[in-house]
Amino acid sequence: MISFSISESEYRERVERVRRALVKRKLDALYLTNGANMFYLTGYSFISTERPAALVIPTDGKITFIGPLLEREHIPLKTRLIEDIKTYVDYPGEKHPIEHFADFLKEMELAKKRIGTDNKAGATAMWGYTGAPLSKKLPETKFVDASNLVPSMRIIKSDAEITLMRASSQWANLAHSLLQEYITKDAWDVEVALEASLDASAIMKKTLGPDYQPMRSMVPVSAWFRGQVGEMSAIPHSMATKRMIKEGDVLIGEIGVDVGGYSCELERTMIFGKPTAKQERYFDTMVKAQEAAFEAFKPDTTCKDIDKATISVFKKAGLLHLVKHHTGHGLGLEVHEPPWLDIGNVGPLQPGMIVSCEPGIYETGFAGFRHSDTVLVTKEGAELLTYYPRDLDALTIG
Amino acid sequence: MISFSISESEYRERVERVRRALVKRKLDALYLTNGANMFYLTGYSFISTERPAALVIPTDGKITFIGPLLEREHIPLKTRLIEDIKTYVDYPGEKHPIEHFADFLKEMELAKKRIGTDNKAGATAMWGYTGAPLSKKLPETKFVDASNLVPSMRIIKSDAEITLMRASSQWANLAHSLLQEYITKDAWDVEVALEASLDASAIMKKTLGPDYQPMRSMVPVSAWFRGQVGEMSAIPHSMATKRMIKEGDVLIGEIGVDVGGYSCELERTMIFGKPTAKQERYFDTMVKAQEAAFEAFKPDTTCKDIDKATISVFKKAGLLHLVKHHTGHGLGLEVHEPPWLDIGNVGPLQPGMIVSCEPGIYETGFAGFRHSDTVLVTKEGAELLTYYPRDLDALTIG
Repeated sequence: MISFSISESEYRERVERVRRALVKRKLDALYLTNGANMFYLTGYSFISTERPAALVIPTDGKITFIGPLLEREHIPLKTRLIEDIKTYVDYPGEKHPIEHFADFLKEMELAKKRIGTDNKAGATAMWGYTGAPLSKKLPETKFVDASNLVPSMRIIKSDAEITLMRASSQWANLAHSLLQEYITKDAWDVEVALEASLDASAIMKKTLGPDYQPMRSMVPVSAWFRGQVGEMSAIPHSMATKRMIKEGDVLIGEIGVDVGGYSCELERTMIFGKPTAKQERYFDTMVKAQEAAFEAFKPDTTCKDIDKATISVFKKAGLLHLVKHHTGHGLGLEVHEPPWLDIGNVGPLQPGMIVSCEPGIYETGFAGFRHSDTVLVTKEGAELLTYYPRDLDALTIG
Repeated sequence: MISFSISESEYRERVERVRRALVKRKLDALYLTNGANMFYLTGYSFISTERPAALVIPTDGKITFIGPLLEREHIPLKTRLIEDIKTYVDYPGEKHPIEHFADFLKEMELAKKRIGTDNKAGATAMWGYTGAPLSKKLPETKFVDASNLVPSMRIIKSDAEITLMRASSQWANLAHSLLQEYITKDAWDVEVALEASLDASAIMKKTLGPDYQPMRSMVPVSAWFRGQVGEMSAIPHSMATKRMIKEGDVLIGEIGVDVGGYSCELERTMIFGKPTAKQERYFDTMVKAQEAAFEAFKPDTTCKDIDKATISVFKKAGLLHLVKHHTGHGLGLEVHEPPWLDIGNVGPLQPGMIVSCEPGIYETGFAGFRHSDTVLVTKEGAELLTYYPRDLDALTIG
């Protein structure tokens, strides 16, 4: 029997770690509004909206969700970790949710205590939410910044998390195969992307069976180019392309796959038609930079060393002016998360970290070149969890 | 020639309105970090990440984007409104982006001025971003909360915005037709959803031609059930369903379509197979509540009156205990936005507002019932922009 999610006992261990950390910091409770952090501790995910929601973990007391009524019946279907649920009807309501939250914390006997939080406002400001900070409603409560508490746990992955990331990487390989296979002349990249997402999602569900569902996404597989086609591939955060795919285009494919709420990152630069000499030179330099980064994952390395390794390759090739971002970022529950493989990050690389490795170069009006792989930091160096071919031959189409 | 976006002159008028409001509030500049607000003023959208980004509009000086290097070449492709671009390489960097931002504001001679902002921290806290608030780096700058300035403009739609929302509603009709058509026994709702999204997106692009692209989404059409199938339809913010569609299921379809960055909302409750008496009773009550809401859109009405109208219907039917959210919310650039059709919102309904109208009832373990339509508030009452059939006959499948 394959597991598609973190076990209840692991979630319970995480909560116990949080409680030990709270005691150490002389805090009486943790108040979280970040959905990824809430999921990390409970396995419960929800759609964040303008309606305030928080998870309250007292050192001594029930793990409590406070939020909108529409989540009440949702929670027990996703987790047994949450022991109490306190709700208001809706936002803004006749009584503002933050007033309810102040009352809920009083009921929990936390109003005169020290509460660590990832959000001093008490609510995430999104989709037009406005409200007074929770601290104004609870003048006797001491709110202390604890925004690093859960992220510092999330940065080193457990064996179970690594297993999920490995499974995600495997399905990403299928999805990228389909994405590449479906590229044709005069197709719109959005159409190719949706076809590959559909087919990979359907095959994944057929293979994994009745117990599988995505946990933090609406669809299992996101396979797309995100507008990185032809000259628009030179825009790393392009969002869309108007025109159809044509001979000579550079295309960058991107895959994410939700397994237990976790996702790898797999990206490949492809060339539609016979590569030009310039395309080949840029492609080869990017591959060399990525290989230099892979080599740089060694014991006692800092995050900045990986970035330095790619910068050095681009510099030698005379293409440093085409670099527009650092080498990578942490992966797990969010699209990007710490640690940053960035020249400014002097923090150590530690076994159990999982990061993207994606040095890129981009020439405006010409094209962009970037592969991204999901890398597990090990005691000896690194293990690549994604394994889709990286060489130009395999990535040349037609 | 059909237009798929707001004209440059309308964006310029919006900026001029902002400048007049700044002068009135005795502010020297506006500093925005909210992507929807930035898009509203410039037509430029980007992927928000941990990398800080902001739009600075001085009352007297160049409209300036400050943010990561990877957006530099992206901006001129999307807007001519932004007159200056100041960038840092990446986050966290050898010098923190907020330090760069402080320097950029000094260069703009704003460091000793009064700046209105939608975010006093100076950067959106997402995906593991951490940093000192901008105000700490600029002790002589007076930051003033102006988070309502742009949203208060966005709440009343212009003729051009209404035209885009109308077009979005038209394509939503196609998408929902396909979504309903593709529902079959033993299919996974995710597969049906991706098929409908793919086909509707492809037809839309074929129809609209080379000038069309989604502006704030990666795909033109999102058609899905979001897990609202069978007993999971009782969870209004369900995210996924493990099992396949079966006879007797209630399904809730949801459509969004990006036209010029704007989207309508179209949702329908469907029944797979002959409805039971109970399904019919709940369905009819929900439809009556929605009709009562449509009737309640009258001159000199407040937002709470619409919510009251639906509550009254549910109460009379003895089903008020199954209500889990208010009647609706504003629509436009974000999934939800003000105004709220909520019992607690005493604000007036004004011509030019566009809102969802979506009263719902949900019985745990049984099913949920909700239609959502996009409603334009007019001088006389309301005009429904979405027009997909609402009656049980049309929404019964097989």
